Amino acid sequence: MPKKIVIIGAVALGPKVACRARRMDPDAEILMLDKDSNISYGGCGIPYYVSGDIPDVKELSSTIYHATRDESFFRSTKRVEVRTNVEALAIDRKNKTVRVHDIKTGTVEDIPYDILVLGTGSTAVIPPIPGADLPGVTAISNLHHAVEIKKKIAKGEVESAVVVGGGAIGLEMAEALTVLWGVKTTLVEMQEQLLPVAVGPDLAGIIRRYLEKNEVKVLTGDCVSKIIGNQKSGVTGVETGAGFIPCQLIIFAIGVRPNTHLAREAGLAIGSFGGILVDRRMRTSDPNIFAGGDCVEVQHQITGQRVILPLGSLANRQGRVIGTNVSGGNEQWRGAVGTLCLKVFDLGIARAGLTTAQAIGAGFDAVDALIAGSDKAHFYPGHKPMFIRLIADRKTRRVLGIEAVSENGDAVKARVDAVAALLSHGVCVDEISNLEVGYAPPFASAMDIVNAAANALENVLDDRGEAINVLEFLDQLDSPDLRVLDVRTRIEAEPYVNKYGKRWQNIPLDELQERLGEIPTDEPLIVICSSGVRSFEAQVLLRQKGIANVKNVQGGTALVELLKDVNMRNMRVTS
Amino acid sequence: MPKKIVIIGAVALGPKVACRARRMDPDAEILMLDKDSNISYGGCGIPYYVSGDIPDVKELSSTIYHATRDESFFRSTKRVEVRTNVEALAIDRKNKTVRVHDIKTGTVEDIPYDILVLGTGSTAVIPPIPGADLPGVTAISNLHHAVEIKKKIAKGEVESAVVVGGGAIGLEMAEALTVLWGVKTTLVEMQEQLLPVAVGPDLAGIIRRYLEKNEVKVLTGDCVSKIIGNQKSGVTGVETGAGFIPCQLIIFAIGVRPNTHLAREAGLAIGSFGGILVDRRMRTSDPNIFAGGDCVEVQHQITGQRVILPLGSLANRQGRVIGTNVSGGNEQWRGAVGTLCLKVFDLGIARAGLTTAQAIGAGFDAVDALIAGSDKAHFYPGHKPMFIRLIADRKTRRVLGIEAVSENGDAVKARVDAVAALLSHGVCVDEISNLEVGYAPPFASAMDIVNAAANALENVLDDRGEAINVLEFLDQLDSPDLRVLDVRTRIEAEPYVNKYGKRWQNIPLDELQERLGEIPTDEPLIVICSSGVRSFEAQVLLRQKGIANVKNVQGGTALVELLKDVNMRNMRVTS
Repeated sequence: MPKKIVIIGAVALGPKVACRARRMDPDAEILMLDKDSNISYGGCGIPYYVSGDIPDVKELSSTIYHATRDESFFRSTKRVEVRTNVEALAIDRKNKTVRVHDIKTGTVEDIPYDILVLGTGSTAVIPPIPGADLPGVTAISNLHHAVEIKKKIAKGEVESAVVVGGGAIGLEMAEALTVLWGVKTTLVEMQEQLLPVAVGPDLAGIIRRYLEKNEVKVLTGDCVSKIIGNQKSGVTGVETGAGFIPCQLIIFAIGVRPNTHLAREAGLAIGSFGGILVDRRMRTSDPNIFAGGDCVEVQHQITGQRVILPLGSLANRQGRVIGTNVSGGNEQWRGAVGTLCLKVFDLGIARAGLTTAQAIGAGFDAVDALIAGSDKAHFYPGHKPMFIRLIADRKTRRVLGIEAVSENGDAVKARVDAVAALLSHGVCVDEISNLEVGYAPPFASAMDIVNAAANALENVLDDRGEAINVLEFLDQLDSPDLRVLDVRTRIEAEPYVNKYGKRWQNIPLDELQERLGEIPTDEPLIVICSSGVRSFEAQVLLRQKGIANVKNVQGGTALVELLKDVNMRNMRVTS
Repeated sequence: MPKKIVIIGAVALGPKVACRARRMDPDAEILMLDKDSNISYGGCGIPYYVSGDIPDVKELSSTIYHATRDESFFRSTKRVEVRTNVEALAIDRKNKTVRVHDIKTGTVEDIPYDILVLGTGSTAVIPPIPGADLPGVTAISNLHHAVEIKKKIAKGEVESAVVVGGGAIGLEMAEALTVLWGVKTTLVEMQEQLLPVAVGPDLAGIIRRYLEKNEVKVLTGDCVSKIIGNQKSGVTGVETGAGFIPCQLIIFAIGVRPNTHLAREAGLAIGSFGGILVDRRMRTSDPNIFAGGDCVEVQHQITGQRVILPLGSLANRQGRVIGTNVSGGNEQWRGAVGTLCLKVFDLGIARAGLTTAQAIGAGFDAVDALIAGSDKAHFYPGHKPMFIRLIADRKTRRVLGIEAVSENGDAVKARVDAVAALLSHGVCVDEISNLEVGYAPPFASAMDIVNAAANALENVLDDRGEAINVLEFLDQLDSPDLRVLDVRTRIEAEPYVNKYGKRWQNIPLDELQERLGEIPTDEPLIVICSSGVRSFEAQVLLRQKGIANVKNVQGGTALVELLKDVNMRNMRVTS
């Protein structure tokens, strides 16, 4: 008798399981259920549908050759049965059946399975604050939300909007609302920085700058405490720590909760973060039930801890593994390092592994280096600045994370993906110093910026020069005790010398050897250049000459210029 | 007494050694010699100087902050002594001295060393054919050549040019001559394809298409047998297998020979490919002499064999390792996988590891898969086609190489660098199938093209479907025995059906199950779609239904369209 494979959930993981299983097993009966009418769509494309980049929502569920991935597509092309608007109510593990409710007909039936796959996904969190049930308050977790939002905006009903949550989706939605529609958008993030689980505060500051430059208001360390409005006319505004903000639309993008009700009720093992527990073959505590995607906990390959990583990219990979394993194969999914990329206006952002703060939280003695460089050879026309941070453990020198931003997003992805690929192999910083990446002037420097970042980190690890983070430096800029040695050329340094006077000394690097006598040796000194390269050179010289109380500004004036006018705090935003 | 470090050669490796050594050792006396007057320049930028992208040759030897890296720069900024126009004549290893000849003053002296570093580079090969000494015949291995070529073109002396050698430099030079100057350029390559040591013949065909579309004539499987002209007016043309080609400039880019005369004469060990032998610390057979860059043999991390890999990117990395080791450190350089990227007109090309042919030559049972995909999510506007080949060993499933092309060059580099980083770790195809790379619609699909390539290769390895290379398929296009099943939609297939008649059958994939009876089971069948994805799906179905003599066209009609009009042979070019 053919094997009966039943898959609950038909968005990302489910279809991948079904199609792979069909290719592996010609005879299996494969049935995929979803309580929604929309299936097999690219949810990560929603911001681009709302922004208008993607004109028709159908494109998100179309194949590359413009077929719509609906029930009939799966039947005729993939030989997979799909039932939509069918909700799974309960799993009877003993009898191996799923009780389902057909939402349209109202009928309830028990469907037998040999193998059950849970791809139940996650639910976007909307906090239980006053007004959360008003019309105009939404999450962004499915196509219905997307269509509703776009319709509302297109009707001219939205002059102002508030996006709550400064993660990837929040940032993409803030851009989407602003860029085409000119909706006055405020982004509210509870943490002190944007993308708090993805990048360090300095790179977050650059991202904030891009948002503010594009007229998105940003509130960090703040939250929406109350939503104002009424059921008839909907939302009219929100209360935040920074005061009342009028708006007609509120989008919550503060995170998701794995949908595990079915699994819990069936007695499957659930992890401490609320996701379904699976082994490396993606099998739950019941050997006849597999699970993957947003509803499971996965192993973080650096910490070894289980985490929730609700990423479409992972759901797809896990789906293929499950498809293999439910068809008698034996494939393992080894875990993840949290590789992520996104675009915010003209800025590309990519990251993998742990942030410095996460690494410290996980018990590592984390050290990082942030450097300024460019996406191409510096002599090649059109090169753009890039900033990369590399994070490692001081004792073992193991690389723990990487994060990067540049207007050349593909180039940022290139650097991060190369290091991400190695993270699970437990490589040391030294391997990144010599990492062999492609070189040609239109694409890189001979020593790529990723090598340079590792070189800088090695220098910190080997105690060849103490660094100071640019945000810490900016905090000291107004201090009367500030004592900066700027080793750039006279022309480069002049505006700073004019502004900061005696507190900002300029000795170009090529004169430093001869003018060492001009530097007071009895006070702490901060050395700076345009990127951190010349200033490091200066720092080495100073140390070799006995002037050791010196810190080098990571990212140099390139980063100072980018961040000095950014409203890192909210006062100026709301004034 | 301070350590005396003498470095011979000051282009790429030498400066890196010197600067690193200075940072590690405040007291060492560091002297760098070069027989040329130009030092520390980005040789890989030469094509972009010739093309006009980089207006001033000085930019190639400028720092990012516009200082020229000359003798005075190294003295004042890097605390390194440099002597230019000084040729090293001989090494006296016993007395630890180098005999040098000052070309300008004519004096000869013996310079003592504690540590000697050889960064003597390589010499571009100009074959000893008749006329090779005529004015207008040049290589492209230093700035003098570059300046001479540009001057000659700017004077209007070059209407037509011949570039000999279809490697990276030859391609970049062909573009440089054509793009700004409109020089009628013919590229001659001895092998049957362009970039023969870098990519497979199909991707080379795409590259050829870009060159021909941009009016570069390409001759493969051909060579220049004789150069015509006289000493007074210079070159007037060349004889090739395809006949006489008039030209006023001939650039040889057929390869380089390591400069090892000094090392040989001093009795240092030389490898079978003619490069200086070094250990992992980059030390020659004399423990007081290090060497790196184009003049050494390096270990290929896949074959384990020693090879010559004259790449500026490697010279820089090796230079840093040597700089550490000559200063009492202990760093290892583990070898290379030959990662390379380049731009040819609008096309970006990247590759790493072994080509299929190289892998077979090295004794692997090499299998590959070539797929068509795109640089972004297929629903994201502005996405561009990308083609990726992944190569693996059949038995061990170890990944041996990757090569890719797309008009989005940074995106190509992202895929290749990520896999290149893993090549030396000996990973299997399965790891690339699940490789976690950054996903967002502006940068990738949820299942990235690199994952899809690995999926396709796994399918071949697991014998789930035999593939046919597009070039092999194109060879059969005119055969009366051709029997194609096109599973695209009617509209997509129509032009082909009209052209090939009964030999080209169209059954859209979604109708295939029901129309299986229309397919003759007794003859070999080639199944095709736009990319290879639907046709693979069809192939699986056919096999599951007992129709097993089926081959799937890798890259589908996307690749067929790109290659069918390309002059893969020379007859049409020269007619």
